[in-house]
Amino acid sequence: MAFGWIDEQAEARRRAGLVRTLRPRPADSPLLDLASNDYLGLARHSEVTEGAARAARRWGGGATGSRLVTGSTELHAELERELADFCGFEAALVFSSGYAANLAAVTALAPHGSLVVSDAGNHASLIDGCRLARGTTQVVGHADPDAVRKALGTHTGPAVVVSDTVFSVDGDAAPLAELAAVCREFGAGMVVDDAHGLGVLGEGGQGSAYAAGLAGAPDVVVTVTLSKSLGSQGGAVLGPAPVIEHLVNAARTFIFDTGLAPAAAGAALAALTLLRREPERAARARAVARELHTRLTAEGLAAVRPDAAVVSVRAPSPEGAVRWAADCRAAGVGVGCFRPPSVPDGVSRLRLTARADLAEEQITRAVQVIGENRP
Amino acid sequence: MAFGWIDEQAEARRRAGLVRTLRPRPADSPLLDLASNDYLGLARHSEVTEGAARAARRWGGGATGSRLVTGSTELHAELERELADFCGFEAALVFSSGYAANLAAVTALAPHGSLVVSDAGNHASLIDGCRLARGTTQVVGHADPDAVRKALGTHTGPAVVVSDTVFSVDGDAAPLAELAAVCREFGAGMVVDDAHGLGVLGEGGQGSAYAAGLAGAPDVVVTVTLSKSLGSQGGAVLGPAPVIEHLVNAARTFIFDTGLAPAAAGAALAALTLLRREPERAARARAVARELHTRLTAEGLAAVRPDAAVVSVRAPSPEGAVRWAADCRAAGVGVGCFRPPSVPDGVSRLRLTARADLAEEQITRAVQVIGENRP
Ligand SMILES: Cc1ncc(COP(=O)(O)O)c(C=O)c1O
Ligand SMILES: Cc1ncc(COP(=O)(O)O)c(C=O)c1O
Repeated sequence: MAFGWIDEQAEARRRAGLVRTLRPRPADSPLLDLASNDYLGLARHSEVTEGAARAARRWGGGATGSRLVTGSTELHAELERELADFCGFEAALVFSSGYAANLAAVTALAPHGSLVVSDAGNHASLIDGCRLARGTTQVVGHADPDAVRKALGTHTGPAVVVSDTVFSVDGDAAPLAELAAVCREFGAGMVVDDAHGLGVLGEGGQGSAYAAGLAGAPDVVVTVTLSKSLGSQGGAVLGPAPVIEHLVNAARTFIFDTGLAPAAAGAALAALTLLRREPERAARARAVARELHTRLTAEGLAAVRPDAAVVSVRAPSPEGAVRWAADCRAAGVGVGCFRPPSVPDGVSRLRLTARADLAEEQITRAVQVIGENRP
Repeated sequence: MAFGWIDEQAEARRRAGLVRTLRPRPADSPLLDLASNDYLGLARHSEVTEGAARAARRWGGGATGSRLVTGSTELHAELERELADFCGFEAALVFSSGYAANLAAVTALAPHGSLVVSDAGNHASLIDGCRLARGTTQVVGHADPDAVRKALGTHTGPAVVVSDTVFSVDGDAAPLAELAAVCREFGAGMVVDDAHGLGVLGEGGQGSAYAAGLAGAPDVVVTVTLSKSLGSQGGAVLGPAPVIEHLVNAARTFIFDTGLAPAAAGAALAALTLLRREPERAARARAVARELHTRLTAEGLAAVRPDAAVVSVRAPSPEGAVRWAADCRAAGVGVGCFRPPSVPDGVSRLRLTARADLAEEQITRAVQVIGENRP
């Protein structure tokens, strides 16, 4: 049988207790959500959902073509202006996902003969970008500017340093200012993925680059996703106008992909408007994360100090993590569970996300349930 | 400067007349659209846009997480059941784009040690899938089952043959039945991208695999996009349940990507419902394409006989193609313009798309404008 080899892999997964199954949720789930990336609680905010609905009605269910043919609407242009302005960059380009934005940024900025220096903890989409890029990739230790310096020192020609700003598994932040200083020693560019920073870090959620004083720099390119803090779908690359023009001409996931659906663009625009009006949401998400961390630590759990809104808690084993998450769910609290092969270091953990709209009593309940159900 | 090398490339593009620029369109564009992939005219159908609006209101602006965490809703499950059922497959898995679905299908089904046989005319997303896959890729001549047979004969171990069903540039169809026969000689699997077949080919638009008698076969996997005939955004992989389960566990663009936005899922579901009720839309799109071809040929233009709803017309040069498209646009008719590097053979062309909802007088006007403005 053509796909017979799949059965062996499935059997091995089953034996290792690593089978993943989908659990479709109802619209009115009773679970207390500490698992989504809806950091600001905007995905179901009526302004955001109305933004989506209005855009679908006005612009259609889909963009109908590549952004280079019929897929660019004035709505996309408005979203690009607004994203660039909000994060402090000259220009922006919107993609159908953050994944596609990362593939685009890395491949288009790492031509033949260039060096890509990539953090060992980077997100899968950045890694796939490195693998698709024509340049040569050197993976360096996690959050290690000295290792980056060493790697850049071995190369002449164009180079880019690629890193998450907030690492999605443990929620720790990259040393952006130090990385930028190293890049500048060597004239290297920076591509940083602010998927978990936009809306959470920087004043009013303007993002990690803004917080590090790097917004609008000529040698810094930021990617973001519209699917986390902004409660929508899509991604974007932010940077100097010539870099964005280059992407329009060279990035395969831009040229050969249908434009983002109008509803997603409309939802993201509404979220940005809301965030400008209520900038305190960003600080509140960070405060909730710190509080979760403090209280989980007080319970004797091994929680990682959060730099943004992700709080990671170590579990003893993959099976232990799965059971822990299931027991929390049974007790009404939804938490994420990361285990091999989705974790680079092989350590399984619960992954909790702070939401700006969590009330004190919800935090108390979450901590209690997580503590009581520890494996 | 870190990104200084970009300026040289920009200058080279300018000199070659190959600069691409975005032209954001207004919501009420007066252009007669022969450029989008909205083959059935559903993107702005009120049932589709209301499907999007309703889903956003009920489910939120975004899916809020990976499909494996919080990003699977009952709406996604319903769309998957409906897509599988419509196209005649056991199971389906929905992605944030057709691009992501292609990356997933090819990478997950071409493990280390396997052979991928890829048609030279395949879409960029399939090519990127081949480049990311752990298996070895052999590119074979366009639509050439004998070349596929030769390639498969050189290999022992798992093999997949990867092809568009309808090639996006010229609109010609792959010889699916012959390819399947060759695959079966060697026990190879097939991954075919029906982006331009779903909604157009097969009875009532059930797709190319259905038309070729391959729907539901244990050795056939089909990818589709929700962004063309279905007027939405997103993609899906259709196939045997064990293959879909394998993708859930192994496909990086599934595991590490936020789930499709509810609005896009709702729009696609509404489009499928509509297509079941009005199956004649598929045949009408094909008839419009044939009529466009006949009448353009009668005008003395070099149009390729369409196998689906794409009609390609040769242009003398990249600049000639750009000017031709611009002149048509100035005369009120929007047409696509493909030129290097977006065309594998280096031949520039106008790309026209037939829509099921084009009226006779619109076809007449389009042919007249395209003919009058030939370079
Ligand atoms: C760090 C990081 N980058 C990129 C992505 C991909 O973004 P999207 O889901 O919008 O494709 C994610 C998660 O999904 C992420 O965690
Ligand atoms: C043949 C083919 N496959 C895949 C895709 C990608 O689909 P999507 O735009 O939904 O990402 C396209 C066009 O966009 C296409 O033409």
